[in-house]
Amino acid sequence: MISVVLVGTGNVAQNLFQALDKTAHVKVEQVLGRNPEHLTFAIDKAPLNTNFDNIPNADVYILAVSDNAIATVAEKFKNKKGLVVHTSGATSMQELKDCDRYGVFYPLQTFTIGKTISFQDIPICLEVSNINDRQLVQSLGKSLSNNVQFINTEERRALHIAAVFVNNFTNYMYTMGEEICMDNGVDFSLLLPLIKETAAKLDNLPPLLAQTGPAKRGDQNTLHNHLKFIKNKQQREIYTLLSNAIKRTHGEKL
Amino acid sequence: MISVVLVGTGNVAQNLFQALDKTAHVKVEQVLGRNPEHLTFAIDKAPLNTNFDNIPNADVYILAVSDNAIATVAEKFKNKKGLVVHTSGATSMQELKDCDRYGVFYPLQTFTIGKTISFQDIPICLEVSNINDRQLVQSLGKSLSNNVQFINTEERRALHIAAVFVNNFTNYMYTMGEEICMDNGVDFSLLLPLIKETAAKLDNLPPLLAQTGPAKRGDQNTLHNHLKFIKNKQQREIYTLLSNAIKRTHGEKL
Repeated sequence: MISVVLVGTGNVAQNLFQALDKTAHVKVEQVLGRNPEHLTFAIDKAPLNTNFDNIPNADVYILAVSDNAIATVAEKFKNKKGLVVHTSGATSMQELKDCDRYGVFYPLQTFTIGKTISFQDIPICLEVSNINDRQLVQSLGKSLSNNVQFINTEERRALHIAAVFVNNFTNYMYTMGEEICMDNGVDFSLLLPLIKETAAKLDNLPPLLAQTGPAKRGDQNTLHNHLKFIKNKQQREIYTLLSNAIKRTHGEKL
Repeated sequence: MISVVLVGTGNVAQNLFQALDKTAHVKVEQVLGRNPEHLTFAIDKAPLNTNFDNIPNADVYILAVSDNAIATVAEKFKNKKGLVVHTSGATSMQELKDCDRYGVFYPLQTFTIGKTISFQDIPICLEVSNINDRQLVQSLGKSLSNNVQFINTEERRALHIAAVFVNNFTNYMYTMGEEICMDNGVDFSLLLPLIKETAAKLDNLPPLLAQTGPAKRGDQNTLHNHLKFIKNKQQREIYTLLSNAIKRTHGEKL
């Protein structure tokens, strides 16, 4: 049995809590957050606490707080004997260096408040300051997911940047797709099967080989017609830059 | 029973053929293509033909050929009595105007050679020159898919441009994500659950509300660190343009 104190009230904290709460090998000793109103997600399920000066002992303290709060929150844990981990892709493990034992527990997924997703397939990226803590953090990870990996701070930073491209920027492509549909009175939901299949293709094909479209084909006629159609300046800029990048990547001379 | 002559040998033609071949209400009279070697996908399943001057009669002629071949291929069908349709998102119905009866049969999906996908959920966008042909093209569409819609040329053009954003450009985001992973020795497949969930979120949330990430949060510190990390000029340009666009869309002052 691993005892855990979970700190935080946002998307990651809430999703982690739901997963940990269902796990037989884990006991959530306490959920800790500054604002009692934001702790309601764990009410009647775990002890709640808003007092950072009165934290119980636990095997692992998970700081699922926003990146810029990690260092400040970690202050409160520097005299604790348990392992202190943060859940951030973008933050160095060294932000926790004043704690006795520290590490990273980064679930590589996008979380939405109110939408519970299974942790089973979520890659959990682990890092620890002390080799003796590998087993503890690994067994906590494995209690939630079948995909647990040790990843150092530099590798995690690369993964996090890659995640910005495939998640944040991809979602922005969806946003522009929806804008174009709305501006022209067509239903964005017509594009959902295409969106799902674009992602599903990656199971069989690396994205470099899955590329299709007018820029990939060097189809100047369609590229020209599309730019004539798009009136929004920001959409035009993005259309042009990405089409040129695809042409360059796929070897057509500009 | 609707009789069909299918013209073409590419991704769309092959996937359409497999779907039509399974449909009880449709008889594929012939598959027509210039190069006999490219017609092997239909061998032993339908009569094959490479002679465009000897085309049998059919209710519908589906020209599943590349955009720039549509007008030339259509020449061969201008004396036919059946309905001639193309399958292109980017091409006006008027490219077929020398035919007696013409229209569009555009399956809004990305097709991969060798990967069969179910047509059942693929939106099929229809257009016809003559109102009397609505029923014919609709019943052909419904024999394949549960999502059949009449969409005019302008709307289809908008949909096609939106599809470039959500499919071609999204796949390019995946490509850059993979590049960054490879350059830093991390496994791109760690990002697959995130990629799938980014697409799955749209079932419950419009993309404008699903946006997350450092640009959305106005997290200058992370944006700065990411740009310091990314050495590739093209990746930097795209990272900067898209981050600024997200900031603008989500109302942060630059």
